Amino acid sequence: MTVAARAPSVVALSGGVGGAKLARGLARVLPAGDLCVIANTGDDFTHLGLTIAPDFDSILYAIAGLSDAQRGWGRAAETWHALETLRNLGGPDWFALGDRDLGLHLWRSERLRGGATLGAVARELATAFGLKQHLLPMSNAPVRTRLRTSEGLLDFQHYFVRRRCEPVVLGIEFEGAATAAVCEDLATLMGGGRAQAIVLCPSNPYLSIDPILAVPGWRDWLREQACPIVAVSPIVGGEVLKGCAAKLMREFNQPVAATTIARHYAGLIDVLCIDSRDAALAPQIEALGMRCMVTQTVMTDDASREALARQVLVAAAT
Amino acid sequence: MTVAARAPSVVALSGGVGGAKLARGLARVLPAGDLCVIANTGDDFTHLGLTIAPDFDSILYAIAGLSDAQRGWGRAAETWHALETLRNLGGPDWFALGDRDLGLHLWRSERLRGGATLGAVARELATAFGLKQHLLPMSNAPVRTRLRTSEGLLDFQHYFVRRRCEPVVLGIEFEGAATAAVCEDLATLMGGGRAQAIVLCPSNPYLSIDPILAVPGWRDWLREQACPIVAVSPIVGGEVLKGCAAKLMREFNQPVAATTIARHYAGLIDVLCIDSRDAALAPQIEALGMRCMVTQTVMTDDASREALARQVLVAAAT
Repeated sequence: MTVAARAPSVVALSGGVGGAKLARGLARVLPAGDLCVIANTGDDFTHLGLTIAPDFDSILYAIAGLSDAQRGWGRAAETWHALETLRNLGGPDWFALGDRDLGLHLWRSERLRGGATLGAVARELATAFGLKQHLLPMSNAPVRTRLRTSEGLLDFQHYFVRRRCEPVVLGIEFEGAATAAVCEDLATLMGGGRAQAIVLCPSNPYLSIDPILAVPGWRDWLREQACPIVAVSPIVGGEVLKGCAAKLMREFNQPVAATTIARHYAGLIDVLCIDSRDAALAPQIEALGMRCMVTQTVMTDDASREALARQVLVAAAT
Repeated sequence: MTVAARAPSVVALSGGVGGAKLARGLARVLPAGDLCVIANTGDDFTHLGLTIAPDFDSILYAIAGLSDAQRGWGRAAETWHALETLRNLGGPDWFALGDRDLGLHLWRSERLRGGATLGAVARELATAFGLKQHLLPMSNAPVRTRLRTSEGLLDFQHYFVRRRCEPVVLGIEFEGAATAAVCEDLATLMGGGRAQAIVLCPSNPYLSIDPILAVPGWRDWLREQACPIVAVSPIVGGEVLKGCAAKLMREFNQPVAATTIARHYAGLIDVLCIDSRDAALAPQIEALGMRCMVTQTVMTDDASREALARQVLVAAAT
């Protein structure tokens, strides 16, 4: 029985690095085939003629155990020789393309040019990297996250990587999301059953989870499920470990706090897992109409990734 | 004064590896700016969305001193991580793309997509790699060498690399050559003057030099020059050191001998340089209406490349 033929019971929505850590934890504690991770593709972009899907690849590498632990992104044992040539030629070197990573981008781009869907390519990649889990893009249709900023409308990677999140963000758009279909027929994907748990990984809510929720089919599907939806707050002790979520919260006149995550997901989620350093906020969060689970949310190794994954599954089961 | 602003006096037509060695020799013995190498682009192809120009790049790397000496092609200190990923994904790995090399392909492809000509890209590459010589493609227009074989019509790289020259060749076509213009205005390139020497490098006559000669502007220009045209035979002791020229000669019912090179270029060249191991053929070659210079043509290091380059220039001057 192939992984693809087995219907998952746990569905996780995830962005890149932070979310990918919990995705790896879930992958390690759940039986083969039981997990389906849906990757944000709002970060996808075309660069040097390559179609690059940073969040999908981060999750793929994380679950496959190929992520670089020190750097926090990209592949372990990576080399940068193509980028070095490109830099010496005065080419665009602002997006760090590792050599091993590049092979995947070349292959994906070739498959897409040949008419394969993003979802079909995802299935092939998951198989080739030995994944025992489902890993799918949120849609086969291109959705592009664009930021209205003090420097004008910026594509996500231009804002996030090239401009290092420096421009002030006035608003966020998910171009193509409203008309994008979900990646696969979800009834078929779920084997005709319903999910037992849905997890919103500790990713940037505005830039990693919202693009998925902006696809109407996903929001509808989430509402149809009877199981709890559990989100994990990316805020730890009033700070964000990685990325620009804190800066966005300030620019949106929101406190950098787990309560902001709770308000953002209110009406959608049943449980919010917050870090023990933010435990004092639990009453305010529960006042928003959701349960609040306090636990250790910082994932520094596989043990802590697995521990958080188990906590999340317990929260969904009780 | 930039190299591009200085008109060359020696023009060499070259294919890849073998020709590139003499190009390097000529580059080392001639003053800066004095040499212009015209690269065969019939081998160029599109692979994984990249525009690859193997002969041009071999010459570029050779003159820049970046060629791998052991392998005979590609860059020194090369790594193969992108190709490894591609192979693990079941992608097309028959064309060996090194990581450092790949950076150049990405950059060139991006520049061409942006509207730059192959010639403009060549100028930029030569500058970026520190060349003091002119190095240009034979044309900005795509010319594609295709082989009519026992397995049907094959693109050059598919015949040469993927099928390792195994199919029997019935004929050779240079698609696009008849309507291709020369890369630059040659009068401007030559500073209004004429060449002092023209060299046909020891490349495969059928697959490396003929595509250049199939561009009408080059054949016309060669006929207009008053200077001697000197070819170097790629045959050494009745054998071909590299590539499939010997196999083609047999398939074309020609002896694998310097005399076949002489007959091929008869009417075009003034001098043929042959290896001392083939010295006995000199009278037959001179009977074809050209001078024959006997020398050491095997280039194993810079000293032998320079020595042959000097011999060729002497042949052109006398």
